[in-house]
Amino acid sequence: MTTSKYAQISQLAVSFAAPQVLLVEFNKPHKINAVDAKTWRDYARIFAIASTDPDVNAIVVAGQGERGFCAGLDLKDTEGFNEISGQATEPSRKAIKSRAHIREFQEAIKSAYDCPKPVIGVAHGISIGLAMDILTNVDIRLAAADTKFSVREIAIGMAADIGTLQQLPRLVGSHSWVREIVFTGRFFGADEALKQGLVSYVYPTAAAAKEAAIKLATQLAQYSPVGLQGAKESLNYAAEHTLEDGLKQIAAYNSFALQTDFYEGISATLEKRKARYEKL
Amino acid sequence: MTTSKYAQISQLAVSFAAPQVLLVEFNKPHKINAVDAKTWRDYARIFAIASTDPDVNAIVVAGQGERGFCAGLDLKDTEGFNEISGQATEPSRKAIKSRAHIREFQEAIKSAYDCPKPVIGVAHGISIGLAMDILTNVDIRLAAADTKFSVREIAIGMAADIGTLQQLPRLVGSHSWVREIVFTGRFFGADEALKQGLVSYVYPTAAAAKEAAIKLATQLAQYSPVGLQGAKESLNYAAEHTLEDGLKQIAAYNSFALQTDFYEGISATLEKRKARYEKL
Amino acid sequence: MTTSKYAQISQLAVSFAAPQVLLVEFNKPHKINAVDAKTWRDYARIFAIASTDPDVNAIVVAGQGERGFCAGLDLKDTEGFNEISGQATEPSRKAIKSRAHIREFQEAIKSAYDCPKPVIGVAHGISIGLAMDILTNVDIRLAAADTKFSVREIAIGMAADIGTLQQLPRLVGSHSWVREIVFTGRFFGADEALKQGLVSYVYPTAAAAKEAAIKLATQLAQYSPVGLQGAKESLNYAAEHTLEDGLKQIAAYNSFALQTDFYEGISATLEKRKARYEKL
Amino acid sequence: MTTSKYAQISQLAVSFAAPQVLLVEFNKPHKINAVDAKTWRDYARIFAIASTDPDVNAIVVAGQGERGFCAGLDLKDTEGFNEISGQATEPSRKAIKSRAHIREFQEAIKSAYDCPKPVIGVAHGISIGLAMDILTNVDIRLAAADTKFSVREIAIGMAADIGTLQQLPRLVGSHSWVREIVFTGRFFGADEALKQGLVSYVYPTAAAAKEAAIKLATQLAQYSPVGLQGAKESLNYAAEHTLEDGLKQIAAYNSFALQTDFYEGISATLEKRKARYEKL
Amino acid sequence: MTTSKYAQISQLAVSFAAPQVLLVEFNKPHKINAVDAKTWRDYARIFAIASTDPDVNAIVVAGQGERGFCAGLDLKDTEGFNEISGQATEPSRKAIKSRAHIREFQEAIKSAYDCPKPVIGVAHGISIGLAMDILTNVDIRLAAADTKFSVREIAIGMAADIGTLQQLPRLVGSHSWVREIVFTGRFFGADEALKQGLVSYVYPTAAAAKEAAIKLATQLAQYSPVGLQGAKESLNYAAEHTLEDGLKQIAAYNSFALQTDFYEGISATLEKRKARYEKL
Amino acid sequence: MTTSKYAQISQLAVSFAAPQVLLVEFNKPHKINAVDAKTWRDYARIFAIASTDPDVNAIVVAGQGERGFCAGLDLKDTEGFNEISGQATEPSRKAIKSRAHIREFQEAIKSAYDCPKPVIGVAHGISIGLAMDILTNVDIRLAAADTKFSVREIAIGMAADIGTLQQLPRLVGSHSWVREIVFTGRFFGADEALKQGLVSYVYPTAAAAKEAAIKLATQLAQYSPVGLQGAKESLNYAAEHTLEDGLKQIAAYNSFALQTDFYEGISATLEKRKARYEKL
Repeated sequence: MTTSKYAQISQLAVSFAAPQVLLVEFNKPHKINAVDAKTWRDYARIFAIASTDPDVNAIVVAGQGERGFCAGLDLKDTEGFNEISGQATEPSRKAIKSRAHIREFQEAIKSAYDCPKPVIGVAHGISIGLAMDILTNVDIRLAAADTKFSVREIAIGMAADIGTLQQLPRLVGSHSWVREIVFTGRFFGADEALKQGLVSYVYPTAAAAKEAAIKLATQLAQYSPVGLQGAKESLNYAAEHTLEDGLKQIAAYNSFALQTDFYEGISATLEKRKARYEKL
Repeated sequence: MTTSKYAQISQLAVSFAAPQVLLVEFNKPHKINAVDAKTWRDYARIFAIASTDPDVNAIVVAGQGERGFCAGLDLKDTEGFNEISGQATEPSRKAIKSRAHIREFQEAIKSAYDCPKPVIGVAHGISIGLAMDILTNVDIRLAAADTKFSVREIAIGMAADIGTLQQLPRLVGSHSWVREIVFTGRFFGADEALKQGLVSYVYPTAAAAKEAAIKLATQLAQYSPVGLQGAKESLNYAAEHTLEDGLKQIAAYNSFALQTDFYEGISATLEKRKARYEKL
Repeated sequence: MTTSKYAQISQLAVSFAAPQVLLVEFNKPHKINAVDAKTWRDYARIFAIASTDPDVNAIVVAGQGERGFCAGLDLKDTEGFNEISGQATEPSRKAIKSRAHIREFQEAIKSAYDCPKPVIGVAHGISIGLAMDILTNVDIRLAAADTKFSVREIAIGMAADIGTLQQLPRLVGSHSWVREIVFTGRFFGADEALKQGLVSYVYPTAAAAKEAAIKLATQLAQYSPVGLQGAKESLNYAAEHTLEDGLKQIAAYNSFALQTDFYEGISATLEKRKARYEKL
Repeated sequence: MTTSKYAQISQLAVSFAAPQVLLVEFNKPHKINAVDAKTWRDYARIFAIASTDPDVNAIVVAGQGERGFCAGLDLKDTEGFNEISGQATEPSRKAIKSRAHIREFQEAIKSAYDCPKPVIGVAHGISIGLAMDILTNVDIRLAAADTKFSVREIAIGMAADIGTLQQLPRLVGSHSWVREIVFTGRFFGADEALKQGLVSYVYPTAAAAKEAAIKLATQLAQYSPVGLQGAKESLNYAAEHTLEDGLKQIAAYNSFALQTDFYEGISATLEKRKARYEKL
Repeated sequence: MTTSKYAQISQLAVSFAAPQVLLVEFNKPHKINAVDAKTWRDYARIFAIASTDPDVNAIVVAGQGERGFCAGLDLKDTEGFNEISGQATEPSRKAIKSRAHIREFQEAIKSAYDCPKPVIGVAHGISIGLAMDILTNVDIRLAAADTKFSVREIAIGMAADIGTLQQLPRLVGSHSWVREIVFTGRFFGADEALKQGLVSYVYPTAAAAKEAAIKLATQLAQYSPVGLQGAKESLNYAAEHTLEDGLKQIAAYNSFALQTDFYEGISATLEKRKARYEKL
Repeated sequence: MTTSKYAQISQLAVSFAAPQVLLVEFNKPHKINAVDAKTWRDYARIFAIASTDPDVNAIVVAGQGERGFCAGLDLKDTEGFNEISGQATEPSRKAIKSRAHIREFQEAIKSAYDCPKPVIGVAHGISIGLAMDILTNVDIRLAAADTKFSVREIAIGMAADIGTLQQLPRLVGSHSWVREIVFTGRFFGADEALKQGLVSYVYPTAAAAKEAAIKLATQLAQYSPVGLQGAKESLNYAAEHTLEDGLKQIAAYNSFALQTDFYEGISATLEKRKARYEKL
């Protein structure tokens, strides 16, 4: 259980919060964890490694500092902006390069969603713009009572483009609310997020929310990785396919997945002991 | 209005609770209605018959006994388990046969969803594992106050594979909640289910819930079967297709469906009398 | 900012409620705004014009009169009914013509959904049948406390066919509720609609709801039309496509959309002034 | 059988070549039928009218003059080009307006494909650029021996955008050939088109090809419009949907379509007489 | 290797033409194998049994008698026609029942396509109408030189509805040809079918074609059933899904399928002996 | 125009065959270019670099040596095989790891298909198994007269899993032929491949085929990269989407792509000079 695999990561804090539980933290509190291009590339790298790291069975994403989880894209990241506009001087090539940059950015943030292991996000304080993209790409969301969410992009003349518009409508029930939130860019608090189903629980402080996330992740981490990853894979898959295709997918997965951990799971239940599952 | 068509069913109780209202009950209360292979095959048979039985216009699914609606798959069903593993001794054929078995099982439970007529499910007491698959495949869910739901599979080292992972995210608003429920396998009660939109109403007792379900079904049963089946067909279809395709589907259906019952419906309304619709 | 473009519209009231905010009102209060074929054709024409009218950046749809937003299809519209049945005397051609009529009707009501600009609907009093089709095709729904909603069609022997069955399940969280509402055709009030996420806010009176809608639209109207239309396009697109396709769509859009208003938006924010966006 | 319905068409020649057979001809031979914006708008209008004109049961599209069917877009159409670039002076709005223009253009050319009645295209001489878009949107293609086809766009620095890239790969067997043709923009003759399956027959002259097309259309025109339109609808639908969905579509269509013409068709066959079908 | 499993089949001839090769023959040569409802129900039953019969690894479908493979639907099958029209006396219920009948008929004919094992069809003489539906639902088509094919339905006033319109365009390259064939209903011979890619080989006589089919099936039957069924499953799946989904499907299948027969296959190749695969 | 960017590639030969034309060659002729895991990983790396290398506008893939283009997977690649089976000792984890390995392998071979630039493949001599996966993932295929193709996998007890089963049916017209080729694994020559549309041209020798490929690539390389990449993107996109979605995609692309090279292309045409396009 070592973070040495993550040695190349310089822009975020990576640690084990508990056995099999990886804690990934944005750690630039002086700028409320505003994200530059280096940081989101590191974010993607962490999930690439964690996805096949047998020491990781569940992941928590949080932000360090009191002021908030993340204040969005770092607007002072000249390097990132240069990449977008590139050296292209005419609109065609500028657009083609810009599109490629957005695609890479989207895939980086989506790496939490694509990661086969459950990911829990913890929001607190300022959680706007890119923070919404990050949070709508994790599996389970917890929030501190002081969280101020906002799909902020419309306020700077643009449509959000790193995942919120695609993920948010799938995550909550009221699309009238989603469109109001997106079209106005207004702030909303933890209680409203809870009522709308965006977050599962609200805690009095950021610390309490983070602690709860780690506790939840620790519970998940004890389960069969074959079962856990199968469940996440099916949920992700079902969101993109017909019911029939979804059923076929899990049938194919369980046709082999049931050959091992299921027997250990049943045995442990009957013998009233904790199940022991091999790492994956 | 006779159950003679269902004479071949030996594993569940089938009766008419009201004119045009079929009541289907799991009736092995001594094992909290745990389901073996014979039972889910009979379950499928009932819906196959009811789907074209002109005497049936709405269906209620419930479980007999005080302890619960259904305790999931009957883990002591050696026959069912033998079928899964089969005689195959090597992993390829084992997996292929196991996959076919899961597919058959899924289709059996999904037969309530595929049935052209509205199906109301009544949960009470223990309602876990396969019970969730059964309940997420009916149209409307009612619950008794004592219901204990759980997507239990992760606790035995596996991902649920008979429909819950595919249906549940479509039925409720909060996907953060869905993933928490699926990844932890924790129990949740009727009130939480109501708050999350999984069930429509909670009743003080199992008997009250069942009575309410029959009353609701009786109301539905008086409507035009052409209209009712058209509505269910459209809702099911819309869940798998684009908006445009969904609109085309109901337009095709109503292009002929409006040629009859619609006129009777309008007339009855204008004449302030009860409409009389031919059976279907 | 003139309504002269809408001069050909005779069946609804069209006006500017605020700069860039178009107010579209059903104005046949004597029949609770029941809609005949002429009216829904005019409704479609309004949105066709408004979609490319640079003077319009947000739209409000409401109904005049105290009794309600809309009592549904005008059952006394003999012209509309003749169109459906046509001169055809045999079932094949009758069905083909009827199908074409329903398709045209669907597209007319869907024109609010297809309009690239945000549309806010205001419900009050009687809001049943076709009113549900109209309301489920706008972006954000507000309601007066006295609203009585109903997916009324089953009561006249038919399945709703102008959009409700396709849109409603996408707009709210509880599908158990959706199916109950559709299969029973029962009335439900503003509070229930709010709780289920169908509407975003409830106001004490119709006037207050309309005023709030105009205020909200006025807020939206000040934002970049490039950003606003991009956001609506993405939300609509995401509802029909995979996550991956949705991400590609907004990346393509923003590859050029970010070349202008985004810079004005950022500048205005840094300079703490109101952004000025060119019309679109 | 009169063309008075088409009186508003000024840019193409519209006539009845035979009973129920509409002949649509590009008639600007002095510029080899190069197409300007007015012309493709008229082209769309013709199909809009013909789609519901009971006097039309099959359609032939051809080009007048010796030099060719069509030399593509009229590059001297300043009006059309102004529309594209519009008054917009900055890249965002320019792109948005340009996109809308392309979409309208695509839909105009696709109106032959969307038309419920069979359309036969006749190629001869120069048939390049937009000619390919037009021809790949009809149902059956015939060619004169002198035809010179080319997906010409790459030669002027662009990707074809009015339908060829979407339709062509569906129409022929060899995708290696399609990509070669598209990437090189090279010319190919009628024999190569025949060998690749792009056209069904080659005739010695343009006149012979047109005559054959009219003869074929005349044959089709005698069949049941219910059957003919059902067949085209199914072929178009199947191209966009799964096999299962395709089967359901024709089952829904024939559930009413078989109630009339089918009986006339059978009777006529048994009685060895020509069937008489009502117009549609 | 016994046909006792097929004892219930009375309407077709079922035999083993070679080890693991099932021969299914229409055997009503006196009416050129015209198919009534009893026969297509038996046809479906054969494939249901053969799909899981470990003694069957490949299937040949042919027609007995000199006059042809199949003259289509038996128009004198009053029982089948009664089923369609049913007892329903009004157009709504008539259409709903008729639709269900067509769907059942489609699924019966599609059972060859859905069968996990390769199916080879042999055409000769008259092969029209339903014969086309049957043949387009098998994997590989061989023909005798005297075959006369026709998508005959348009000649009796209807669109083909048992699979041809959905399958045929996927099987051959030239869609111009497909639409000509479908819209005209004209006859075409074995050579034209070969040239268009509809059949793989043409043989001088029906007997020679059947012999070749059996020989080909015998070759297939010696291969690994795990490999063979995996290949057919993937080809069928790929036809309905995106490239990415197709790749995922075969990856899931081979993740277990490679654990057994692949090693036997490699070993046999290296040891230059015939591989021995367990039945499936 | 330097290959220094490709310095890390050790398993294949990378060179510039002409300005803007990258030549990628399998260069292990002593084992007929059989591919091990290191090689296909390098293959993927080449396309990753070339995709954004402004010096590359078209790519040729070929195999060195007289004996053939590629003899498939290197069955002696113990490293690759160890990766598949991994250290896992039980069937669940073995299958999960194996599946991930196949997925990575598929994506590597598909990188030619995903590359935004046109790729031409040259087959000669032995071209079997994995060679088919490689070739079906390029855009245009040329062949030497001595080529022996085979979808060889069934002969070693498995279904092909690196792309052939997904791509091949999309590339040629006759699906009867595809299934015969896949189910039998038989060899077929260049002429048959040409007749079936799998390859575009056949040349007398491998050298002549390679020369023709380079000449063709050189022609493509002179065109606008914006136009060329737009065309390939549209063709790839159209293969996965509905017609309507395909049209929208190219409309979005050309909304900006037409702002530059199109004007240069037109100008050059009118001025009868060679167009000069900026690199991309």
